[in-house]
Amino acid sequence: MSTKEQYVPGLDGVIASETAISFLDTEQEKIIIRGHELIDLSKQNDYIDIVHLLLDKKLPNQEEKADLEKKLTSNYHIPSNIMDLLALLPEHTHPMDGLRTGLSALSGYDEDIDNRSLEANKSRAYALLGKLPAITVNSYRLIQGQKAVQPNQDLAYSANFLYMITGKKPENVEAEIFDRSLLLYSEHEMPNSTFTARVIASTNSDMYGALTGGVASLKGNLHGGANEAVMYMLNEAKSEAEFEELLHKKLVKKEKIMGFGHRVYMKKMDPRALVMKESLKQLCDEKGDHLLLEMCEAGEKIMKEEKGLYPNLDYYAAPVYWMLGIPIGLYTPIFFSARTAGLAAHVIEQHEHNRLFRPRVNYVGKSY
Amino acid sequence: MSTKEQYVPGLDGVIASETAISFLDTEQEKIIIRGHELIDLSKQNDYIDIVHLLLDKKLPNQEEKADLEKKLTSNYHIPSNIMDLLALLPEHTHPMDGLRTGLSALSGYDEDIDNRSLEANKSRAYALLGKLPAITVNSYRLIQGQKAVQPNQDLAYSANFLYMITGKKPENVEAEIFDRSLLLYSEHEMPNSTFTARVIASTNSDMYGALTGGVASLKGNLHGGANEAVMYMLNEAKSEAEFEELLHKKLVKKEKIMGFGHRVYMKKMDPRALVMKESLKQLCDEKGDHLLLEMCEAGEKIMKEEKGLYPNLDYYAAPVYWMLGIPIGLYTPIFFSARTAGLAAHVIEQHEHNRLFRPRVNYVGKSY
Repeated sequence: MSTKEQYVPGLDGVIASETAISFLDTEQEKIIIRGHELIDLSKQNDYIDIVHLLLDKKLPNQEEKADLEKKLTSNYHIPSNIMDLLALLPEHTHPMDGLRTGLSALSGYDEDIDNRSLEANKSRAYALLGKLPAITVNSYRLIQGQKAVQPNQDLAYSANFLYMITGKKPENVEAEIFDRSLLLYSEHEMPNSTFTARVIASTNSDMYGALTGGVASLKGNLHGGANEAVMYMLNEAKSEAEFEELLHKKLVKKEKIMGFGHRVYMKKMDPRALVMKESLKQLCDEKGDHLLLEMCEAGEKIMKEEKGLYPNLDYYAAPVYWMLGIPIGLYTPIFFSARTAGLAAHVIEQHEHNRLFRPRVNYVGKSY
Repeated sequence: MSTKEQYVPGLDGVIASETAISFLDTEQEKIIIRGHELIDLSKQNDYIDIVHLLLDKKLPNQEEKADLEKKLTSNYHIPSNIMDLLALLPEHTHPMDGLRTGLSALSGYDEDIDNRSLEANKSRAYALLGKLPAITVNSYRLIQGQKAVQPNQDLAYSANFLYMITGKKPENVEAEIFDRSLLLYSEHEMPNSTFTARVIASTNSDMYGALTGGVASLKGNLHGGANEAVMYMLNEAKSEAEFEELLHKKLVKKEKIMGFGHRVYMKKMDPRALVMKESLKQLCDEKGDHLLLEMCEAGEKIMKEEKGLYPNLDYYAAPVYWMLGIPIGLYTPIFFSARTAGLAAHVIEQHEHNRLFRPRVNYVGKSY
């Protein structure tokens, strides 16, 4: 049996792509985005800078940044047919499924859809990044029979996104922290959703299809759905002591506890979780309510002691989103919307250096 | 560098899964479906038998077969909201994108959507197989502003599918040949769309999401889109001589010629293509018009001599679909509808023996 024929379940550790976009350097515990460290970026830059870094391969100067923000905000408009279509979805449609359907339907408005050139793909990515906040928020609202909301052109991209979610203009600190969460979610090497998008794009299929597959992947509770699961778990308890008790019970029953561990970091802490924990503290200080921070810290201690596991980004993004007044059903759709920057960069890279993904199997079925 | 870290572009030859469903035995030139050879099955069985084989792991007896057909036909109904939603898609929506949107929207009607048990997944698969002909045909019709068509409960599953496409009750030979094409398209180990579906399902995401990703994958012209490309190419010529000239011109210009070669068969003939070629001959005899058969045979000869390439299934499915009166835009959606049997079996197998797909990358970007 040649090395190519070794079977590694889940392709764990298998190199699936060459990429110039990002890399998780587990030895140095660094998340690298096009040569920059994500944690440094989260302290000096905002989400729009990272979109530029991902799609234009370098951080923008002031002019380029203003230009990019205009490219996104000028694409806010959602065709009225898409709104009508979202309103037809039945009431118990999952928010990620509503987002998936809306995104899928958008492809019919792209008059250049067969064009896979770099320029066409980039302008498609700007259009999608412009439309995703409105698709995300309004698919959620319309499914529930609420009225659609319109973007506020006077606000910056992330502030408008948060405004559309909560219905009120965010305080500066809220907008900053929400922007930071988008930045941290923007790109992360080759998780399942990014892999899905590249596998689809490799058939020469288009960006809408690749991203639609990405939504489907991110919905799973072993992937993006984890941030919602964390919040439901936190809400089951009303105090630090109750949360400790809940975790101990789950550990005894050997239930999976969401928000801890990560295939690639393994025993080390997700550095993004640390940044979000600081943001949670900042929000708690601001609001004079430290309950969620205390609960999370208690949970972190238990999981380290009992299982040797450290929190990942979802563990601290969930309480941050809660304190920002975001409905739990939107946590994963927001993750997807932020990740669209990275996914689009991967689709573009796949189309530029393509090789169709077509692996083989070990047949373990009936003999013949 | 360990063997796990070797990079194989497109995962060519890499084992991605264990499966008891199917296997391309390239040494013996056999396509195996749960221990049976697909070519044998195509001579003795029909599509419903294969659906049973794929989902229930054995060929059905007469009673089981009637039972299964009833499970599919009793699921024909499409909610009126889905029809209204499809009618809202803009006119130049690609047929595969219409199918993708309709399939995605269906998830909201599944009241047991969080249930990943074998039984729930199987009944979901029956429901989807029941609804897919109507979704396939009506998404295509409604996008073009045509009226929706209703299934005819008096016809067998495949005959009804063809009836909904053409609007007329098919002759027995037409229904048989269409059924055979569905059977040949039903399952084929681990092509890109099946891989996509399993990668998505591995996050614990649901069957709708996995299949939606499968549609997106199959749309690409390096995958399912090839059957349409073949027919457009055949239609560019009006005679055997013109088709030969067209192919020679394309070869000189080094253009990719669709319908030839296959990653896994390599230099050998796709045995499914042979079966479809016989069906084409049967249809040509029936209709007393052998032009398409003669053109295809001439093309087969040229490609063997000039490039050493043999036709794949798409090369002969395209002219068969043309002679059955099927609009070209429906060729790939029909392929998807047929493949849903195999895709559903793979999603079920993935959920039963799950390991999250999460590979790594070779970072070739800016140093840090």
